[in-house]
Amino acid sequence: MKTQPLKGMRDLLPAEQALRDHVQGVILNTYRAAGFRRIGTPILEDIENLDKSDGGDNLNLIFKVLKRGDKLTAALGAGDAAALADMGLRYDLTVPLSRYYAANRDRLPTPFKVIQTDRVYRAERPQKGRWREFVQCDIDILGDASPNAEVELIDVTARALLALGFEDFTVNVNDRRILRAMLAGMGFAEDALDSVCISFDKLNKIGPDGVRDELAAKGMPPAAVAALDAFLRGGDLGLEPLAARLPDPALADDVRTVLATAERAAGGRYRLAFAPSLVRGQGYYTGMVFEVTCPQFADAIAGGGRYDNMVGRFLGQSVPAVGFSIGFERVCAILLERGYAIPDARPRLALLYRPEADFAAVLQKAAALRARCDVTVLPQQKKLGRQFGALEADGYAEVAFADNDEIRILGQKDKN
Amino acid sequence: MKTQPLKGMRDLLPAEQALRDHVQGVILNTYRAAGFRRIGTPILEDIENLDKSDGGDNLNLIFKVLKRGDKLTAALGAGDAAALADMGLRYDLTVPLSRYYAANRDRLPTPFKVIQTDRVYRAERPQKGRWREFVQCDIDILGDASPNAEVELIDVTARALLALGFEDFTVNVNDRRILRAMLAGMGFAEDALDSVCISFDKLNKIGPDGVRDELAAKGMPPAAVAALDAFLRGGDLGLEPLAARLPDPALADDVRTVLATAERAAGGRYRLAFAPSLVRGQGYYTGMVFEVTCPQFADAIAGGGRYDNMVGRFLGQSVPAVGFSIGFERVCAILLERGYAIPDARPRLALLYRPEADFAAVLQKAAALRARCDVTVLPQQKKLGRQFGALEADGYAEVAFADNDEIRILGQKDKN
Repeated sequence: MKTQPLKGMRDLLPAEQALRDHVQGVILNTYRAAGFRRIGTPILEDIENLDKSDGGDNLNLIFKVLKRGDKLTAALGAGDAAALADMGLRYDLTVPLSRYYAANRDRLPTPFKVIQTDRVYRAERPQKGRWREFVQCDIDILGDASPNAEVELIDVTARALLALGFEDFTVNVNDRRILRAMLAGMGFAEDALDSVCISFDKLNKIGPDGVRDELAAKGMPPAAVAALDAFLRGGDLGLEPLAARLPDPALADDVRTVLATAERAAGGRYRLAFAPSLVRGQGYYTGMVFEVTCPQFADAIAGGGRYDNMVGRFLGQSVPAVGFSIGFERVCAILLERGYAIPDARPRLALLYRPEADFAAVLQKAAALRARCDVTVLPQQKKLGRQFGALEADGYAEVAFADNDEIRILGQKDKN
Repeated sequence: MKTQPLKGMRDLLPAEQALRDHVQGVILNTYRAAGFRRIGTPILEDIENLDKSDGGDNLNLIFKVLKRGDKLTAALGAGDAAALADMGLRYDLTVPLSRYYAANRDRLPTPFKVIQTDRVYRAERPQKGRWREFVQCDIDILGDASPNAEVELIDVTARALLALGFEDFTVNVNDRRILRAMLAGMGFAEDALDSVCISFDKLNKIGPDGVRDELAAKGMPPAAVAALDAFLRGGDLGLEPLAARLPDPALADDVRTVLATAERAAGGRYRLAFAPSLVRGQGYYTGMVFEVTCPQFADAIAGGGRYDNMVGRFLGQSVPAVGFSIGFERVCAILLERGYAIPDARPRLALLYRPEADFAAVLQKAAALRARCDVTVLPQQKKLGRQFGALEADGYAEVAFADNDEIRILGQKDKN
């Protein structure tokens, strides 16, 4: 039997799990206070839903679940490898949410403000900080086409990050419509823009040379590739100069509104910025996209965007939708690295009992002590000093005894 | 695209999810207060670990994940159907915990008191109340061979159920060693006892006729099958008459101790009972097994037992272990049916704004109101009475307005 977890997956020790539970609690409390409501969807989805979901490179990273029984036998008999699986593990929470909204819309309010915090799966090559099983914390607003929805998501997501002690961060905003107009202006064909965006988004991973080579390999027009390359190397442009060059300057109105309103809502606690080279990987984004960056970290700690056409694929009728996802794993890794201490952690006490003790009475004494702290009952060892040391190393603050009223505070020098 | 969740899996509406989060919170708080610490393990496990895990009928219900890339091509080329999958979705939390303990033992205290609350998967035929994806809430104690561990698990699990409002319940206790001695006494062969137990455990599902027929179909000795059949139809025996018939009466000592001690710890708030026909399905149980039943419900709401050999399969060295699992889905279904109201739910307020409002100021007003309640910002509709009705139906208690200080309590007659 193998004792290690599968490649790219993790066992979480008690201290890590406690940090994750705390972080999730802070995020959930912030989101709930803002009127968002949590839902749940299965981790498995129909494989066709996933395959057709326009998730960019994520579609190559789906873990597929083998058919069972007669259906497996039939698929094997037909020798059709593509027909072996009928389900897959979801690669994000947006596709399941879109399906969910289509299935349950009659029972949901409009606009629907929703929280999801749950596991997703991607069969990526494992590397530091990148996992095959990880948690996303999303909020979404469905049924609201106004840019106020973007402003609200930025406000609430930023409040969650502030509550976790993040301070020096920037919310970067772009609009796919501006991006597409700009790329079309460079000479890329309209029906190639999704594919160009997917390559473009890898800028941080593969650099401008990588983007240029990938676009060339995709057979894109050399002049267009050269124009994009020059743009990528020339640094970012401001919103107004870029807007002035757009065929329809009104394309910049939503970004302008969102930046100005979110900036005032922020009240100086974090920054807003226009980021014309921001893409986000998923193919399903249709309008604004955003990403939260901190100067200390190379990768974004949150990201999202508007995906007005996704629910329509399930429902046959378009529903405006926009979401913002906190990179839960990255946030936890940063807090762990910073030595973040859980602010409201209850003290832990060990109640020691001797072999001859009445164990029912021990449990009753423990229950009484639990009003004030977390209480573990443990057999008292002969070498009490050594036991105290082990308990302190394991994070216990106090020791009590079943057979007397003494309470020993750990980490203090013995006075005797 | 398909809008419904997969067969046997569920979308959770906001009210259901809120109940589940509350129930999980009550259980986690109870377990943490008792010094248990939560860990996390991946939902996927190596397929060999699962296949060799002695999980009884659950082994036939594993969702398997298809290999990827070259390994899939190789498996397809070899035409070996059994080699198509390299991972599986776990069917319980005990197998992953045993692997986890073997992998991380050096960093864990002894005894290790651990909480797991997470999803598991079984490809069962879907039916009312039985899901293919469901949540288990487990506590386990590893590294403690004393029956005090059983008593502690019973005490803490019962406290969680009491905290959720369950009152009229019984903790039924048996010991696999007694059961095996009794079955051996009836004439079943030693190496057939696991298989007999697995059939025996289906008593509630398939009745005594079903058990008898299944044992006969397995080729068990007819005299032994007849003796068991007579026992199943004769009703339960008391502990002492049964102990007197055992080849080694000391086999009943642990059950006797656990029943007496847990009874005193219970202090009359729930009942303890010896249940000689209690088996529990998993093959891995080695000693005591337990189950919580309520007179109102056919199925158990919690169950567990001692599995002293499971960690040893991973570690090559035996570690005593015992666990108790609350049937989270069943508990939630019962509470939902009872119309359980979440006791500490914050009131929900809708803050309405007009199209001309300064949205940044609206968000700031909302933030100020959140000290007292959950606040959603929503565009004010022209038909205000209709909007009030919809908000009330959606569970809002109050309405406030961005442009004045009025607060309207919903559900009260308009005084004007």
